[in-house]
Amino acid sequence: MSADTTEGRTRTETDSLGEVTLPADALWGINTARAMANFPVTGRPCGDLRDLVWAYGAVKLAACRANAAQGLLDPAQGRAIAEACRELMRGDLDQEILVDRVQGGAGTSTNMNVNEVLANRALRLLGIAPGTHAVIDPLDHVNRSQSTNDTYPTAVRLALHRGVERLLPALGRLAAEFDARSADFRDIVKIGRTQLQDAVPMTLGQEFAAFAETVREDAARLEEFLPHLREVNLGATAIGTGITAPAGYRRSVVAELSEVTGYPLTPANDLIEATSDTGVFVLASGLLKRCAVKLSKISSDLRLLASGPQAGLREIVLPAVQAGSSIMPGKVNPVIPETVNQVAFLVVGADATVTMAAEAGQLQLNAFGPVIASSLLDSVALLTSAADLLTERCVSGIHADGASITARTRDSLAVATGLVPLLGYASTAALVKEALNGHRTLAELVLERGLLDEGQLDAALAPEKLTGEGAAVR
Amino acid sequence: MSADTTEGRTRTETDSLGEVTLPADALWGINTARAMANFPVTGRPCGDLRDLVWAYGAVKLAACRANAAQGLLDPAQGRAIAEACRELMRGDLDQEILVDRVQGGAGTSTNMNVNEVLANRALRLLGIAPGTHAVIDPLDHVNRSQSTNDTYPTAVRLALHRGVERLLPALGRLAAEFDARSADFRDIVKIGRTQLQDAVPMTLGQEFAAFAETVREDAARLEEFLPHLREVNLGATAIGTGITAPAGYRRSVVAELSEVTGYPLTPANDLIEATSDTGVFVLASGLLKRCAVKLSKISSDLRLLASGPQAGLREIVLPAVQAGSSIMPGKVNPVIPETVNQVAFLVVGADATVTMAAEAGQLQLNAFGPVIASSLLDSVALLTSAADLLTERCVSGIHADGASITARTRDSLAVATGLVPLLGYASTAALVKEALNGHRTLAELVLERGLLDEGQLDAALAPEKLTGEGAAVR
Amino acid sequence: MSADTTEGRTRTETDSLGEVTLPADALWGINTARAMANFPVTGRPCGDLRDLVWAYGAVKLAACRANAAQGLLDPAQGRAIAEACRELMRGDLDQEILVDRVQGGAGTSTNMNVNEVLANRALRLLGIAPGTHAVIDPLDHVNRSQSTNDTYPTAVRLALHRGVERLLPALGRLAAEFDARSADFRDIVKIGRTQLQDAVPMTLGQEFAAFAETVREDAARLEEFLPHLREVNLGATAIGTGITAPAGYRRSVVAELSEVTGYPLTPANDLIEATSDTGVFVLASGLLKRCAVKLSKISSDLRLLASGPQAGLREIVLPAVQAGSSIMPGKVNPVIPETVNQVAFLVVGADATVTMAAEAGQLQLNAFGPVIASSLLDSVALLTSAADLLTERCVSGIHADGASITARTRDSLAVATGLVPLLGYASTAALVKEALNGHRTLAELVLERGLLDEGQLDAALAPEKLTGEGAAVR
Amino acid sequence: MSADTTEGRTRTETDSLGEVTLPADALWGINTARAMANFPVTGRPCGDLRDLVWAYGAVKLAACRANAAQGLLDPAQGRAIAEACRELMRGDLDQEILVDRVQGGAGTSTNMNVNEVLANRALRLLGIAPGTHAVIDPLDHVNRSQSTNDTYPTAVRLALHRGVERLLPALGRLAAEFDARSADFRDIVKIGRTQLQDAVPMTLGQEFAAFAETVREDAARLEEFLPHLREVNLGATAIGTGITAPAGYRRSVVAELSEVTGYPLTPANDLIEATSDTGVFVLASGLLKRCAVKLSKISSDLRLLASGPQAGLREIVLPAVQAGSSIMPGKVNPVIPETVNQVAFLVVGADATVTMAAEAGQLQLNAFGPVIASSLLDSVALLTSAADLLTERCVSGIHADGASITARTRDSLAVATGLVPLLGYASTAALVKEALNGHRTLAELVLERGLLDEGQLDAALAPEKLTGEGAAVR
Repeated sequence: MSADTTEGRTRTETDSLGEVTLPADALWGINTARAMANFPVTGRPCGDLRDLVWAYGAVKLAACRANAAQGLLDPAQGRAIAEACRELMRGDLDQEILVDRVQGGAGTSTNMNVNEVLANRALRLLGIAPGTHAVIDPLDHVNRSQSTNDTYPTAVRLALHRGVERLLPALGRLAAEFDARSADFRDIVKIGRTQLQDAVPMTLGQEFAAFAETVREDAARLEEFLPHLREVNLGATAIGTGITAPAGYRRSVVAELSEVTGYPLTPANDLIEATSDTGVFVLASGLLKRCAVKLSKISSDLRLLASGPQAGLREIVLPAVQAGSSIMPGKVNPVIPETVNQVAFLVVGADATVTMAAEAGQLQLNAFGPVIASSLLDSVALLTSAADLLTERCVSGIHADGASITARTRDSLAVATGLVPLLGYASTAALVKEALNGHRTLAELVLERGLLDEGQLDAALAPEKLTGEGAAVR
Repeated sequence: MSADTTEGRTRTETDSLGEVTLPADALWGINTARAMANFPVTGRPCGDLRDLVWAYGAVKLAACRANAAQGLLDPAQGRAIAEACRELMRGDLDQEILVDRVQGGAGTSTNMNVNEVLANRALRLLGIAPGTHAVIDPLDHVNRSQSTNDTYPTAVRLALHRGVERLLPALGRLAAEFDARSADFRDIVKIGRTQLQDAVPMTLGQEFAAFAETVREDAARLEEFLPHLREVNLGATAIGTGITAPAGYRRSVVAELSEVTGYPLTPANDLIEATSDTGVFVLASGLLKRCAVKLSKISSDLRLLASGPQAGLREIVLPAVQAGSSIMPGKVNPVIPETVNQVAFLVVGADATVTMAAEAGQLQLNAFGPVIASSLLDSVALLTSAADLLTERCVSGIHADGASITARTRDSLAVATGLVPLLGYASTAALVKEALNGHRTLAELVLERGLLDEGQLDAALAPEKLTGEGAAVR
Repeated sequence: MSADTTEGRTRTETDSLGEVTLPADALWGINTARAMANFPVTGRPCGDLRDLVWAYGAVKLAACRANAAQGLLDPAQGRAIAEACRELMRGDLDQEILVDRVQGGAGTSTNMNVNEVLANRALRLLGIAPGTHAVIDPLDHVNRSQSTNDTYPTAVRLALHRGVERLLPALGRLAAEFDARSADFRDIVKIGRTQLQDAVPMTLGQEFAAFAETVREDAARLEEFLPHLREVNLGATAIGTGITAPAGYRRSVVAELSEVTGYPLTPANDLIEATSDTGVFVLASGLLKRCAVKLSKISSDLRLLASGPQAGLREIVLPAVQAGSSIMPGKVNPVIPETVNQVAFLVVGADATVTMAAEAGQLQLNAFGPVIASSLLDSVALLTSAADLLTERCVSGIHADGASITARTRDSLAVATGLVPLLGYASTAALVKEALNGHRTLAELVLERGLLDEGQLDAALAPEKLTGEGAAVR
Repeated sequence: MSADTTEGRTRTETDSLGEVTLPADALWGINTARAMANFPVTGRPCGDLRDLVWAYGAVKLAACRANAAQGLLDPAQGRAIAEACRELMRGDLDQEILVDRVQGGAGTSTNMNVNEVLANRALRLLGIAPGTHAVIDPLDHVNRSQSTNDTYPTAVRLALHRGVERLLPALGRLAAEFDARSADFRDIVKIGRTQLQDAVPMTLGQEFAAFAETVREDAARLEEFLPHLREVNLGATAIGTGITAPAGYRRSVVAELSEVTGYPLTPANDLIEATSDTGVFVLASGLLKRCAVKLSKISSDLRLLASGPQAGLREIVLPAVQAGSSIMPGKVNPVIPETVNQVAFLVVGADATVTMAAEAGQLQLNAFGPVIASSLLDSVALLTSAADLLTERCVSGIHADGASITARTRDSLAVATGLVPLLGYASTAALVKEALNGHRTLAELVLERGLLDEGQLDAALAPEKLTGEGAAVR
């Protein structure tokens, strides 16, 4: 932030509230300084939100190009600002984006911070000192034809899009890993459970295939949703009427942004509606919550199936990744699935935050964009980390002792349902009760009473029949 | 429920827990009786959920046809059961579906209740007394090739589909009514507000058009979602392996259900996954919540715009639908939008319930289907009522005093932004401050100082320019 | 509602919106009629909320007495109104309180409905036809010195107080039943589990004692909270300034209400604050949610401990209360704990609703009292039912096979922690790993290597030492 | 972390999973290293949670003293560990507590990190190299007689206690500031509003006094709650049975902790219950949520009252703390209250997270303590910052133009309710309607018709009577 030559030197900037003294070399300016003082909230600066900074850079670059094309910036100004935008996109200026991610004002302070940094960086590129706003002004040049109210929501959408693009392959890897375990466990016949009670047979491979399918479905829903994030309100300016933005600019700026980002973006249908609307964020949050809920359910299942080692279900063994206890030697805990559960709880909490914030919007704007953005960007990043952790540090190393599981299944009463089509519900229920009370197997009772012969019984209770495997019904 | 001839008479049924005495003419049976005793929870019987009863009837009819086609029911049984199913679909048997909508057991008691009522009604149609299960048995015949775990989730999806189909036109009517008001208010220029502070001019028509667009977008998202509800797990039976259901049945039952319902249904990709999966319900809940949040925001806006009559914004007047106060004579309150707000809060609460319930699923089943179904079906019905109330008892009668609104706008400082492209941000800000402190208008100051001439000023501040109306930028 | 003599006859009432025709004998009047038309929301009338109707009757009786004492009602009016209030408290007029529990207007329609019914019932008691408001007027007499804004919140507090008073003994019975099981299971040594992994020994009695303690603690917190519900804003009238209520009335009305209800009520400190304040309801909701969360956790534990019968933990057996499955004969499901889980999810959802509604209050009033009241009164009733169901249909019949549990514990590795003070953490961890891999017991390895002698080992691993029982450390 | 002399040097540690190479001078060890690799979740290390680190230091110091008193540590070990604990409490070792705040394993990794840092720091104090565990071992010495399962929940309670102790005075300052404004605004008569409609007169001073009272009540509830945080389960060890902790230690350790912290702590009634119990955290979260909801409501009120400057209510003016808009010059936004709203939404979200996590506890432990701790400690810190911001940057600078407010009130229809006791509800309602339609004042109409004489009218409408000020009714 400060070169040797300016160490300790300052510059002064002025706004309608008065003067503020800044480090001479700071690329940020008076509005950023005020915002830092006003919002000591989370201690987590916007500059940490890499995707958001990238997206804001893209938005500013698109606006700069559209302004330049309309002759609203002179070529040198335009080139310098554009170069600064590219640096912002690349991450070179993250450490200058210092305002707290949670802030009053609908994102104005983030936009101001970005405008100031871009103006001052552009000045530097021209060899001019920061703060020389007569040459390049944060508002009159960098923010030209724009408002926080169109740039901020547009940037948040792009940032979220990018986050989801990182989540999707993480979910894909997780599904693939579940598929791999499904293949490993294809021949292990086990007792399926409903309501935690023994139900009917299935294979452990089927169970893991279902995990894979669940994850893939979440990913598919997120993917279907992405186009909604590509509908932006850039050009709307303050409230959607496009005030200050010439028609030519408005006609071209979304196309410029498409080119800058590579996304096929479209302008919102009704810019006034789009400017105050947070529906897309509520829906995004709902989809991320769905994903969280399902990952949490799977993680709880993994913990349940791995319970033991002696007094639990112990159908699978999770890889040990650390000592489990400070007091119980040898204990290995399912810490990775537990992490995923907790991430899910955070995402559910974030959804509550987004819901409250979205509902509280008033008239032409929702003032609570910053907490919506922070919550959603956190959620998508947390889910990505959680999916990767689950893939790499848990699912990849799961093993199962197939022989002992299958042995336990063979004589279990869970095969009884296979007899219902032959013996009827009530008769089978009576057999089950008798078997359970007398510690007999169903097969013994059925044969003893001549209800079926051995061939019929074997056919009825064949694992491939009970588990539906091999059946090609669809 | 009881004909004169059997008044006071009883019949006895038996299950593995023992005997229960029932009214001789009750179409429900022992399992229903036990469930009524076990679940005195909400006092709201499943029979009140018209869409769910219709859907369960459809599922049972489809299963009956598919069983009959496989020769698993004899023709007379099949015909009688099918006729009973049609009666259930029509609503003739609602008062026999008595189990509480919130119940343990993943919907088993609802399925049992339906099975018993259909079996006994079919017996009646054959002129045979209820309880003669040797002829038609609730489980061996009506429930043949089925489980609660495939019939209940399938029925809930269909019921929800039907509910959403009723919500969509209600949202459409609301959007149309907002559009009508938008047309009425097309020429009323007002001050748009961001963060509750005067921002820039717009028309009241634009504001109402944005309400219309918001509602239409919610409807569009719900409509896009409907196909996901048409993917069902019927044929999966207990855990998705299809146990007890012959291959021929499984191949045909979803097609039968499509025919019965008229919906183009498809079987789920992975029946094991689909049987425990509640992702579609979490997503449905998220979409309903989005809709609720937006209707709530609009309702709050209407209340704000109608605040007064003397000490508020008073840009619109809501129709009076009742005396507002027991103490303040003449007070008229915005009770319809307030109702919509409260419905929204109920829907947000229901989403929390659905989230908890979905997350708590274990292994091959989510045992909490009943609370999920109850919550979602309540939400969709509440939103439908709320949308209709808002349309008919509020939006249809809103009027506005355009002349006074426009007069207030003309001299407001909210036009200042229109000067920024001409004078720059900082200079305009200084003018605004001076005008506000000195109770002057901007126009006066601009002309006084010769910053612009009258022609320039008029062009810059022309309402059609400030509000973006007439501009065809897209 | 209608006696034979008036069958089909009508009366007409008028308000500032116009005329409405009512059944001649209806005790409710024009405001109720309008509210029924305006609020077809949940279909659940306020009259179903017995505690709320009782409480409203009490409030009106107290106000009637205080008004009469000030000479604001003539003695005959006062006596008739008071008698009608007593009937309302007793439940005789529930079927006349017809407005929907969820309604716009902060409870005005409920108050209006109550006022009308009381006025008309009082008229009847005087032998005068309903609607003769010149003699007794719903507003000028029954509602005298009152507003919805003080009577409704006061009534909701009293209703909630009464609901909690019913919940507390239900929790007490549940705790006592857990204590009884704890005594039954005192000598059953089992493996305690943390993170679903075998941890260290405990008794099943200790586990059930902890359930009892949890429930008692929830009850204790609720009991500590009750006094806050006894702080009321009666006398505040419209916004807390007491407008229309003479000082003498305000000084006495809360004392009258104390006498009527038997509760030691106090007026709120700041009546303006109290009139808009919903903090007490948010806190009540938080306490009910705490209770729900804990009951849900316990129910999940019961389901887990009862999992099986063959492929689960099977430490306890829950009583069978109904057939578990429509397809799996002999299956018995934990339907009662599952019901409790679902009630808990509803209470969590209701808390979200209350939170949203409370946050949305504006200026001198929270307009969303009805949805707050409905949600809280539902929650407290649901928890009471759930606690009773759990007590009577589940915990009372739980049994355990102590011998087999204790046998499994004896050779388990979960005793290893008992060796840590003697052998150190790292050495014990190595022994555990070796034992697990080699299918040996810890005792064998310890003795084989001479790490301890038999006496030392027995002392270290004595169940009473491991489980801490008999130890009197506190 | 690394002194010059050891730059680049490493040491190796071993656990049952194998070897890990660490920086030679790291005070943390192998378990910390594994946890850092396992939990790249939020990127926010536990060391940032100052109160938690302080509390963990206190717990370890108490345990060290109790162990030393029982002769379980030799004096030199004990002294060195105790000194390290004091350093941890002071904050000198924060940068060594590196595990992520959200982690699987119920806090084990935090406890391990603390144990390792304390052992190694104690070794350093003795002039011995880190990792020399034969002299001081993280588990056998620092963690002696302890488990994560008693130390972590105890530390979280203490940390939360400390956080609340910081929040309480912040709320006190806010209430005091509202009181100061209340005094400033004592004589400003304004129109109170219910349901955003003009209701009856009050003073602006009364309105601000109500804000003060709300905040004080929230503080009072939090203060009443604090004793529950002082009930700890230290001594419970793994599951509450106190395994590995000698009776003498258990008898004294809570007393030691009281002495170390200055808090009058008590041991939980049932240590097994207390070890798995999260009820106190759910309740804490509910209380913090109540506080958040009320601060949010107040902030929304401030924004509403300050709406304008020309097209809003404009009863108060908030201090300008930054330029409000990047496009609208001169716009000043209520950014501080908006920040408070957003903090409230975060706290509501955190409550959802805590609820999910608490409900998901299983058997003898809730594995999700870390996300509960992180959420609660965040919430309490956020609320403290928000309260301070609101006090210092908003409420302290609010002013009001009393003359114009009072002028607007004088002729408003909101005085009508003052006439009800004299003219009756229906007659007054008719007058209001007529006045509103005819743009007349009530006074004119009343006098014109001789309904009251001037003296009566003045008495009825005297501001001190309407606002209830001066009345000493309580």
